[in-house]
This record gives sequence, C-alpha cells and structure tokens, in this order.
Amino acid sequence: MQGPVMEFWYEFASPYSYLAVMRVEKAAQTAGVRLAWRPFLLGPVFLALGWNDSPFNIYPPKGRYMWRDMERSAAKYALPFRLPSRFPRNGLLAARVALLGAGEGWVGAFSRAAMTANFAEDKDIGDPAVIADLLQRMNLPAAELLARAGSEENKLALRRQTEQATEAGLFGAPSFIAGKELFWGNDRLDDALAWACQAGAAEGGVPG
Amino acid sequence: MQGPVMEFWYEFASPYSYLAVMRVEKAAQTAGVRLAWRPFLLGPVFLALGWNDSPFNIYPPKGRYMWRDMERSAAKYALPFRLPSRFPRNGLLAARVALLGAGEGWVGAFSRAAMTANFAEDKDIGDPAVIADLLQRMNLPAAELLARAGSEENKLALRRQTEQATEAGLFGAPSFIAGKELFWGNDRLDDALAWACQAGAAEGGVPG
Repeated sequence: MQGPVMEFWYEFASPYSYLAVMRVEKAAQTAGVRLAWRPFLLGPVFLALGWNDSPFNIYPPKGRYMWRDMERSAAKYALPFRLPSRFPRNGLLAARVALLGAGEGWVGAFSRAAMTANFAEDKDIGDPAVIADLLQRMNLPAAELLARAGSEENKLALRRQTEQATEAGLFGAPSFIAGKELFWGNDRLDDALAWACQAGAAEGGVPG
Repeated sequence: MQGPVMEFWYEFASPYSYLAVMRVEKAAQTAGVRLAWRPFLLGPVFLALGWNDSPFNIYPPKGRYMWRDMERSAAKYALPFRLPSRFPRNGLLAARVALLGAGEGWVGAFSRAAMTANFAEDKDIGDPAVIADLLQRMNLPAAELLARAGSEENKLALRRQTEQATEAGLFGAPSFIAGKELFWGNDRLDDALAWACQAGAAEGGVPG
C-alpha cells in the first residue's frame, strides 16, 4: 500500500483528543491520507515534564478556559459535549483496548465510542464494565478483548508506544506526525494532513 | 461609534503574539470589527502561575516544537521570521510605547514594527535606541515619546492593564476578548472575530 500517511497520537483522558478523534477519520479520507492510530498515555509524558496531574488542573486559569473552549469548539464541530464529573479519567484500559483495535480494523469506531462515553455521556472509561459495554455494542467479543488487553504482551506494547511518544518529542495530545514533522493540537489537524500529502508526494509514496 | 468590538491582548516578547499582531488589523477590518489594542506584560501573569521564565524555556520539548511551528506558521501566513538569538526579549519598553499609541492612532503600525524587529530582524526591542529608531521611521517624535513612555502615569497605566489581564482570566498571549468570551492563541483569531460580530448583533451594537 502506497500513499501519504499520518500518525495520530491521542489519549483517552484528553479533551482536545476527543475533538480530534471524532473528526480525524473523515478528514483523512477527504485528504486521501492513510491514518496510523497511536493511542498512548499522557501521564508518563507529563511526569517527564514535572507534572503529576493534568496541566488543566495544575493551572486553574488554563483549566477554566479549556472547558469553556471545549464547549464552544464542540458546538463549532456539531459534536455532543458534557462537562465530565471527573477529570482526568483513567485512560489506561481504553488505550490498551484501542491498541488491539489498531491491528484489527476497529480502532476508529472504538475510539469514537470511548471518547463519546467520557466527554459526552460522563461515563467512567476506567471501569471495565463500561468498556465491555462499548465493545458488545460493536458486536466484538468483550471478555476476550479485555483479557487480551491486559496481557503482558499488550501492556508492554502500550508502554513502548508511550516511550516512543516521548522520543518523538511529543508533550501533549492530540499530536500528529506527518513526514518527519510534529504537529500539536486539534487545531493543527488540517495543517498536518496537508503536510502528509506534500511529504507523500515528495517521497513518491510511503510504504504501507 | 457603534458596532462590534474585540479586545486584542498581546505581549511583545511572545512569538505567537507576533503572528497575531501582523494579521489582526486586516482581519478585523474584513470582519467589520473595531479593535481595542491591549499591550500587556506576560511576566507577572506567568509569575502568578508559578513560572519565572517563558514556559517555552521551562519545558524544552514545548520550546523546540514552538520554534518549528513558528517557522511553519510564518511561512503559511507569508510573514518573515528569523529565530531570535535571545528569548524572551524584554517587552516592557515596547509595551509602554504601544500603550501611548493606543490612544493616538499609531499603535498598530508601531506594534507591527516592533514585532518585526524582534521576530524577523533579531533586534533587541529592550534597547531604547532600537525603539527610538522605529518611532523615527514612523515620523513620530521619538525622544518625546520615550520620555512619556517612562512617565509615572504611563508606567502605572501599563501595570493596571496587566492586572486587568489576570482579572480577565488571561494566562497567555495573544488573547482576544469578544463580548464576555475569552479566546487564547493566534489560532483563535477568526473564532474571536466571529464571536464579536455575533455579540455585537445580539447586543445591538457596543458603545464606542
């Protein structure tokens, strides 16, 4: 498979990742860019920067602004949004499940469902029952997937992916990597897709 | 004077404020929005958040990303950009001078000139000789303006404006206030202008 490709790095606890997850597949299709879904954990990335909590909690004016900006942005994209009663929620289980889905073709649908649960339905995505319910509604074998999500192999795979995030210079989510360029933030989705097209054309296609 | 109005808050040491300063006047004219230029100092705002330096210096991955993003963004807007040899530069004098210009009709031209000096010509805008040169090239009385910029009255006015920034919930620059809504970042300029138009229409115009 040839053609432009873009890595999409996101965290299930991250509000702006919600906006990007809901938009990215359609936007990439329109741009003719193949998506590489890269769920990862912001916690270790933030710890490396000296933060033991979300910066939106550590810096209250930033947090107040972000929630209002989320309301406005969700309205702009016609996405449902409800202020979560707990923030940040634990995105570990959802990320482990999404990592399985990335190899099996259902990562997009699962990611949208889990993000919607967290940011539109105020459900605790750290609760295995909530994730199992999402998988069942997708007609996927929930019990089997939860078991595989918690396997040593899959836990290690997510740990490696999170380490790769730091190595790639990521410091927040969502982030996009197109060619060798890093783009940070839901606001940069279109720029990143344009860069991927340009880089793909310049390199005569990227092996897939 | 009636019609929609938008407050534009910026700091002369701030890279993304450079992008906004260069774009805001034309964008506001096109949108039919009157601009209220609000130069202020980020230093005290950052101190209140616990930062004694730019977060781009405190968090190296953020800083590395920002400079690359500035290069790309400047290219996108067809603006000149040169990596400053010192960051952040002291924007105090430029802000004091801009505050005078805000009452006398030349704040836009001066702000663009000082921002260009800092971010496209690598000049030290903290040096009174550099600011004097910019004013002279605008056919303004440089010596007189520098004296007035350093008057107790004007120093106090900038201090008050910076306090107002914190009171309005600002935590970074550039920021925009339209109606009672705060928008943060060069990326939000168009959203803020659209909000100003909407708010202006809803309120039947804002006294000017």
